[in-house]
Amino acid sequence: MSLIVKKFGGSSVANAERIFNVAKIIIDDYKKGNDVITVVSAQGDTTDDLIAKAHEINAENPSKREMDMLLTAGEQISVALLSMAIEKLGAPVVSLLGWQAGFETDTNHTIARIKKINTERLQNEINKKKIVIVAGFQGINKYDDLTTLGRGGSDTSAVAIAASMKADKCQIYTDVDGVYSADPRKVTGAQKMKEITYDEMLELAALGAQVLNNRSVEMAKKYNVELEVLSSLEKKSGTIVKEKVKMEKTLIRGAAKDENVACISVVGLKDSPGVAFKLFNKLAQHKVNVDMILQSVGRDLTKDISFTVPLDQANEALEAVKSLSDTFEYKDLIKNDSIAKVSIVGAGMESHPGVASKMFEALYDAGINIKMISTSEIKISVLIDQKEADRAVQVVHDKFF
Amino acid sequence: MSLIVKKFGGSSVANAERIFNVAKIIIDDYKKGNDVITVVSAQGDTTDDLIAKAHEINAENPSKREMDMLLTAGEQISVALLSMAIEKLGAPVVSLLGWQAGFETDTNHTIARIKKINTERLQNEINKKKIVIVAGFQGINKYDDLTTLGRGGSDTSAVAIAASMKADKCQIYTDVDGVYSADPRKVTGAQKMKEITYDEMLELAALGAQVLNNRSVEMAKKYNVELEVLSSLEKKSGTIVKEKVKMEKTLIRGAAKDENVACISVVGLKDSPGVAFKLFNKLAQHKVNVDMILQSVGRDLTKDISFTVPLDQANEALEAVKSLSDTFEYKDLIKNDSIAKVSIVGAGMESHPGVASKMFEALYDAGINIKMISTSEIKISVLIDQKEADRAVQVVHDKFF
Repeated sequence: MSLIVKKFGGSSVANAERIFNVAKIIIDDYKKGNDVITVVSAQGDTTDDLIAKAHEINAENPSKREMDMLLTAGEQISVALLSMAIEKLGAPVVSLLGWQAGFETDTNHTIARIKKINTERLQNEINKKKIVIVAGFQGINKYDDLTTLGRGGSDTSAVAIAASMKADKCQIYTDVDGVYSADPRKVTGAQKMKEITYDEMLELAALGAQVLNNRSVEMAKKYNVELEVLSSLEKKSGTIVKEKVKMEKTLIRGAAKDENVACISVVGLKDSPGVAFKLFNKLAQHKVNVDMILQSVGRDLTKDISFTVPLDQANEALEAVKSLSDTFEYKDLIKNDSIAKVSIVGAGMESHPGVASKMFEALYDAGINIKMISTSEIKISVLIDQKEADRAVQVVHDKFF
Repeated sequence: MSLIVKKFGGSSVANAERIFNVAKIIIDDYKKGNDVITVVSAQGDTTDDLIAKAHEINAENPSKREMDMLLTAGEQISVALLSMAIEKLGAPVVSLLGWQAGFETDTNHTIARIKKINTERLQNEINKKKIVIVAGFQGINKYDDLTTLGRGGSDTSAVAIAASMKADKCQIYTDVDGVYSADPRKVTGAQKMKEITYDEMLELAALGAQVLNNRSVEMAKKYNVELEVLSSLEKKSGTIVKEKVKMEKTLIRGAAKDENVACISVVGLKDSPGVAFKLFNKLAQHKVNVDMILQSVGRDLTKDISFTVPLDQANEALEAVKSLSDTFEYKDLIKNDSIAKVSIVGAGMESHPGVASKMFEALYDAGINIKMISTSEIKISVLIDQKEADRAVQVVHDKFF
C-alpha cells in the first residue's frame, strides 16, 4: 500500500466527460489499496474567464488580494465537481480548499510561497480511508486571506503535499505522455524518455518545454520527491523525474528551442574597470533576468557586450542601459528580437567534450549561423536566427538520436 | 455616523456596469461618514450555471457537502469583483468570505442555520475605516467545511450581520423600489408603503410577494433590526420594515394571490373520534405543510374535510391520506390544483370586524365564488378559481385603496 499524490491540470477536468475520466484513474489506484490525494487545477478556461471579468472592472491594475479572492474560486469549482464524480462512482471522497488542506503561505498575493503545510486534516481524511481532492494553486496567509502560488502553482501544490506527507510518488498528469527529447509535434524522431534527472528537467523546462513547472521540480529535487509525468488520456507509463537515473545510450536528453528571447548589444563601449559589473548590476536592479552573455575581446579601448533577456523584459533592459549613460560611453545600443535559443540538455555531456562540437557540426552542415554560445555543465545553448529555429532543433536532434 | 448594512442580490451585480452602480451607492454612504458593510449574492445566473454543472455529473443526488463547496464559489467571485470596482473608484475596501466574516453555522449542508457570528474581523476592518464586502449565503461548520444557508440566504446573512454588529439599519436592495399593496405589474393603483410591520411583511411574503425572504424577516423581528427595502436602480427611499408603524389611513397593507396551491378534499369521511387528528398527524409525518382547513358540519355520520397544501406537495398529501385507508373510511379523495388563494394583510384589521365582509362584498359584486375562507389576526384568505385570481386581487385592492 502506497500513498500516491496525483495532479491534474485544467484541460483534464474541462468537462463532465473528462472529469469522469480523471475520477476513474483515481479510483483505479484507490481500489488497489493505495491512499490517494489528488490536486486539481481550475477547469479549462475558468481562470482566463475570471481574469477577463476582473479586467472589465479594472483593466490595468486590479488589487492583487482581490485577484486571489477571485481566482481561487476556479479550483473550488473543480474540486467540488471531481468529488461529485468520484462519489457518483461509489468511492468515498472529500474535497479540500487550499486552506483546508493546510497550505500556509507568505503574504505575497498572486505569487505566494508556501511556508508550510499543516497535514493534520489531510492525514485525518486519509485515515478515514477517503480519497482527498485538493484545490491546487492556493493557500492562506497569516491574516487568513486567500493567496495563490502563481504560474504552475498546482504542480507546486502537488509536490508540496507529496513532500510533507512523505508520499511514495507524485504523478503529474498532462496532455502529453511524458518528457521527450524534443517537441514531438515538430521534430521527427523525438523520443520519450523513461527517466530524467531533476537538473535535466529544470534545463528543459527553462527552454520552454512546459511539461512541468520549474518551481515544482526544484521543490521535488529539494525534498527528493519522485515525480512521474504521464498522460491523463492514455493508460501507459510516463517519464520518471528523480535525482539519479540509469545512464542510457544517448548522452543527450533533449533538444529544444526558446523563441521568447531578445538580444541586447552595447556596441563600442569605452573600457574601464568595473564596466561589466556596473552594467549587470543595473540590470539586476531593474529585475531583468539576463541569460547568455558575450563580451568581445577589447582590441582598442572599446568593447562590445551582448546579452539575452526574456522578450518581455527587452524594453526594460534598454531603459536600464540608457540610465547608465552618465556612467559610461558607448556608440550604439541594439535590440534584436528575431532570434531564438536552441539548446541540448543532458547530464552525461559534462564528461564528454565532443558533445559541443557535434552540435556545432550539425548546425554548420545545415548552414545555420551561430550568433552566441553558452554552456553549463548539462546544457549547451546557441543563439541563431529565429526563422532557422525549427530546422536547427531537427538537425541537432537528428545528430544525437 | 452610523453603521449601515446593505445587501445586493445577484441581478444587481450581474455585469460590470451594474457592479459599478452598486459600488457608487456604497461609496456614497461611506463618504457621508458612515461605516458600511455590504452583503452580496452570486452574480446573475452564476448559481444556476453551477447547479447545471453539478447535475451534469450527478443529475439526481449530488453530495450536499460538495454542492456547498461548489455554490459558495459564486459569491466569492462577486465579492472580489465588487471590491475591485470600489477600489477602482478610490475607496478603501476588503472582501470577506462567509467564514472570514465569522459566520458559524450548524452542519446541515445546503440549509444551514447560523449559530453565531464572530464579529472580530468585521470590527477590525471597520476600525481600519474599510468598506467591507461580505459573501452572502455562506458560512462554515464546526468541521471547517463550507455551508450554505439555503434560499434567500443572503438576506439572512445581511440581517445577521446587522443584528450582531448592532447596525443602525439594514438595507435590502432589490429590483423593486419597496413593498406594494399589490403586485404593481398586475394591479392598477397598487401603492408603495412607507412602513410596514414585520408580521405584515411575513404574511405578504408567505403570499408569494418575494421581496424579502421570510427567515430574514423573522430574524429581523427577533433582534429588532430595522429593515429597508429599496431599489438598486432608482435613488429614492423604499419601505421600512419594523416592529410598530404609524397607523395610516388604510387598515389593509396589501392584497396578493398565491397560485402555488392545491386543495385536497376527503369526501364522505365516516365520523369517529380523533379522525381529524389522525389525518393531519399523518400529513405532518409526511412533512406536508397544510395551510387552510375546512371541515363540513357532519349531518349524517359522514363529513367532508378539505385542506390546501403547496402545489408540489399535493401528490405526497394524496399518498398520506391513502395510507390511512385501514384506519378510516371515506367515499372519495379529490385533488383540485386549478385554484388560487387571494389574501389581504394588515395589522389594523384585527380591531375592525368590517374588513372581512368588505372583502367578501368586493368578490360577490365581481361574481367570484369563494370556495374556502381562512383568517388570522392580520390576514384574511379566500380560495377561488385560479382563472379569477388576477381579477379578484384587483377588485379587492380597489375596495380598500
